Amino acid sequence: MRTVSILCLDTSTAKISLALESKNGVFQLSYMGREKHAVRLVPLLDALLKSADSKPKDVDLIGLGIGPGNLTGLRIGISTVMGMASVTGAKVVQLNSLEVISKNVVTERIKVVVRRARSGFVYAQIFDSDSKEPRVYSVEEFREILEGLGDYVLVGDGSNLFEGEVSPEWTWFPTPEVLLQETKNRVSEAVPFTEIEPLYVQKSIAELNLERRRGHGV
Amino acid sequence: MRTVSILCLDTSTAKISLALESKNGVFQLSYMGREKHAVRLVPLLDALLKSADSKPKDVDLIGLGIGPGNLTGLRIGISTVMGMASVTGAKVVQLNSLEVISKNVVTERIKVVVRRARSGFVYAQIFDSDSKEPRVYSVEEFREILEGLGDYVLVGDGSNLFEGEVSPEWTWFPTPEVLLQETKNRVSEAVPFTEIEPLYVQKSIAELNLERRRGHGV
Repeated sequence: MRTVSILCLDTSTAKISLALESKNGVFQLSYMGREKHAVRLVPLLDALLKSADSKPKDVDLIGLGIGPGNLTGLRIGISTVMGMASVTGAKVVQLNSLEVISKNVVTERIKVVVRRARSGFVYAQIFDSDSKEPRVYSVEEFREILEGLGDYVLVGDGSNLFEGEVSPEWTWFPTPEVLLQETKNRVSEAVPFTEIEPLYVQKSIAELNLERRRGHGV
Repeated sequence: MRTVSILCLDTSTAKISLALESKNGVFQLSYMGREKHAVRLVPLLDALLKSADSKPKDVDLIGLGIGPGNLTGLRIGISTVMGMASVTGAKVVQLNSLEVISKNVVTERIKVVVRRARSGFVYAQIFDSDSKEPRVYSVEEFREILEGLGDYVLVGDGSNLFEGEVSPEWTWFPTPEVLLQETKNRVSEAVPFTEIEPLYVQKSIAELNLERRRGHGV
């Protein structure tokens, strides 16, 4: 039996993270810099596949970070995966990008992943005993939530907006290592590319703004 | 002023980890598989530099994992860096590979990094309030040390030889993310390539074997 070949990709943050597990081993590649994801993603993907002596058609399964996060970056990653999978038929494992980030930190404390959304708002998810959904919060609202939370550690590029201990900067972005681990843990959840549903969590911003305009509290 | 360009490299484990920070951004590449480091390292380095549109002569500073770890792998990484630096004059920041591994785990508990050495022995280092040196221990000897240690987490490919909670497998190997972080933290410790001193910690194995042959306890 041929080895299953797995590609992983997250473009929801300033970092492009890629991983490839094939018969030739595990290859991981990432980039963070001033150039747009639209410019960098495809050349990086190409370099990764070349290093592994693989071709896009060899990929059976794709682990895809579906956000929440930077909309433009997300769309580029998701579109690229849809394009590939529409040709090759590869199945897709959808990964919550905030959960992937949370796994960078191995701690007994509550993990709070918090990323900057547009001005005054954050994407955030609290990882404690109940599994809460990723959401958009206003900064003030999330400050109040943290006050009642107990012993937590902040992870992500929105950490510095809040009080509390912050994890090292490298943990703020999805790493290829965790992308691959999570994809392999969730192989049974793979879907055809036509079923990809990004976690834009945008409606909440719209709702918050509407409430704001109407003068309601949040 | 030109941006300082930093290359990082660790070959002390089954994983080859590379990072490059240049004016074009941060690029990270790693490989783990059946092929030897001797076969893979230079092509990976080449792919990394090409992705970043950089050349070896552009590198001002090299962060180098000096072990302890697999001797052959280590020597290949160190020789490659020496070769590059002898031509370019790049300075080298020497990194304890076990310490780099330890930084993958963000926890309040004591971190015990433990890697398989030759049969019956491990390379290990305990990260608690006193800073202990990396050392070679016999498995039995290290078991006794762990018994008196308190609340710890095991990290590394020797973890399963011992009792206790083990960190996720991706944390067992030096990651490009931490290599780069540690190199930047230690820029002031950079030395010329002629002063590179690998942490082979081999003498201890020889000593242990000698004692064993003489019938002494360890």
